[in-house]
Amino acid sequence: MLLNKLGEFGLIDRIRKTIKTDASVLKGIGDDCAVIRYDRRTCMLLTQDMLVEGVDFTRRDDPRLVGRKALAVSISDIAACAGLPRYALVSMGIPRAAAAAYIDEVYRGMRALAREYGINIVGGDISRAPVLTIDVSLTGFVEKKRLVLRGGARPGDMIFVSGRLGGTRQGKHLRFTPRVAEARFLAEQYRLHAMIDISDGLAQDLGHIARASNTGAVLFEKLIPFSAQARGLDDALSGGEDFELLFTVSARDGRMIIKRSPSRFFPVGTITEKRYGLKIIDGNGGERVLRISGYRHF
Amino acid sequence: MLLNKLGEFGLIDRIRKTIKTDASVLKGIGDDCAVIRYDRRTCMLLTQDMLVEGVDFTRRDDPRLVGRKALAVSISDIAACAGLPRYALVSMGIPRAAAAAYIDEVYRGMRALAREYGINIVGGDISRAPVLTIDVSLTGFVEKKRLVLRGGARPGDMIFVSGRLGGTRQGKHLRFTPRVAEARFLAEQYRLHAMIDISDGLAQDLGHIARASNTGAVLFEKLIPFSAQARGLDDALSGGEDFELLFTVSARDGRMIIKRSPSRFFPVGTITEKRYGLKIIDGNGGERVLRISGYRHF
Repeated sequence: MLLNKLGEFGLIDRIRKTIKTDASVLKGIGDDCAVIRYDRRTCMLLTQDMLVEGVDFTRRDDPRLVGRKALAVSISDIAACAGLPRYALVSMGIPRAAAAAYIDEVYRGMRALAREYGINIVGGDISRAPVLTIDVSLTGFVEKKRLVLRGGARPGDMIFVSGRLGGTRQGKHLRFTPRVAEARFLAEQYRLHAMIDISDGLAQDLGHIARASNTGAVLFEKLIPFSAQARGLDDALSGGEDFELLFTVSARDGRMIIKRSPSRFFPVGTITEKRYGLKIIDGNGGERVLRISGYRHF
Repeated sequence: MLLNKLGEFGLIDRIRKTIKTDASVLKGIGDDCAVIRYDRRTCMLLTQDMLVEGVDFTRRDDPRLVGRKALAVSISDIAACAGLPRYALVSMGIPRAAAAAYIDEVYRGMRALAREYGINIVGGDISRAPVLTIDVSLTGFVEKKRLVLRGGARPGDMIFVSGRLGGTRQGKHLRFTPRVAEARFLAEQYRLHAMIDISDGLAQDLGHIARASNTGAVLFEKLIPFSAQARGLDDALSGGEDFELLFTVSARDGRMIIKRSPSRFFPVGTITEKRYGLKIIDGNGGERVLRISGYRHF
């Protein structure tokens, strides 16, 4: 079987099934971060993301923004678990003909973002590769009581996003702000049931939450906040790489969030029983199945 | 400037100079692992290695051995700091036309080695790439009192290697045993002054120890243990990817090691004052400068 039949998530599932972990691993493959027991009060978070030229960025993109994105996507994963990022390792596969000045700029962009988020770049590797390939691993920490994963959503929860969606192909994917401060604020003020960062698109990432939580979900089309660059509903649902937080809380906490932070967090729907499936309700009250069509690597 | 002018180590130096870290980072870029303060007695070790098809392995190599190597090189870095490996993240850039069965085999090789060394594979990433690209990050731990780095060698130290060198191009580079048990044994029994794993070749990695320790060193050609596949002295000195430990101890500890473990650890030379430089003495007592010519990526 070729990978384009199996797909990225099929492959990840296949791998996950074969892997056993010991009791120190509170969460292994299949969430935004791996969660490791650190001490009585703290969990260690581990995440890693690979960016490849021609897939995640192009040679014409500003190299500083490329470096920035390579670190930002991992920061976003730590944010999705309500953690604080601390240590980064950076591997780079570099074409032989690359200019040192170009690579300097990539590091410059990464370093500036690292400084902004209090992250130490502590090591990594350099190799040769046919196209620029950047793989960043990031270690973070979160208080055990504030840890949020994908699997805690409950029927009746309100579903929120942390910002406007869509339009990422117009350059936003290189400039997004990882939502660490927002996630920390939410985890301190409310009881988050489930959280994920929107990397594959609202529809697909909501599907990840629903699947992990064994629930269904319904979105209200009219509630979905569009970014200025969004090219319609499909873009906001499936464009991917928004890197906003998608989270669920009890209806009680939800009402508080709407009241206190009306322009920071946007309610977009409700978690339902599993048998309801994944649905979206349009402006006229018409209900249809939420089509999941995020980015496919293969 | 193109990278082939600057070179891999030039580039790493350039990056290192621009990066600042906070007080929790005991050692950042420039050793086998980054060393992070964990608790009063323990350090956390972080390392990451990227393997690229056509550079570190070929499409004709057994995929299980490719997966094995991708993890083994990072285990070897943890061993070089006398640590125990614990958590791995695996990023894979996969060509679109790859067969799922091939990728399964790569994971199988990695998984088998992980099990052998008590390592949890807890996450990672999958992307598309022009050639198979595997980047593994590994977290380990070491008691603070047993931590060994490159920079602790002292004039008068004896220099040892943990096994026979050379012949890695004949397939050994895919099958080597990371020397975790040996490193732990040494760190428990002796006072290791400096240690590194031989990835770039004995000459170059001894150069790394000498530079970090601000010393010189002399090797005795007749003492260098050749592997059965080695094609002469140059291969043993500069072939690279032996992944044996290279370490220094006081002459007193050195004599004990020779007496107790004659066929496990091989003395190959002595650490000298810096002004002596790096030398090798041949079978007839002739001294010459140790030529450093390990593998170059660019």
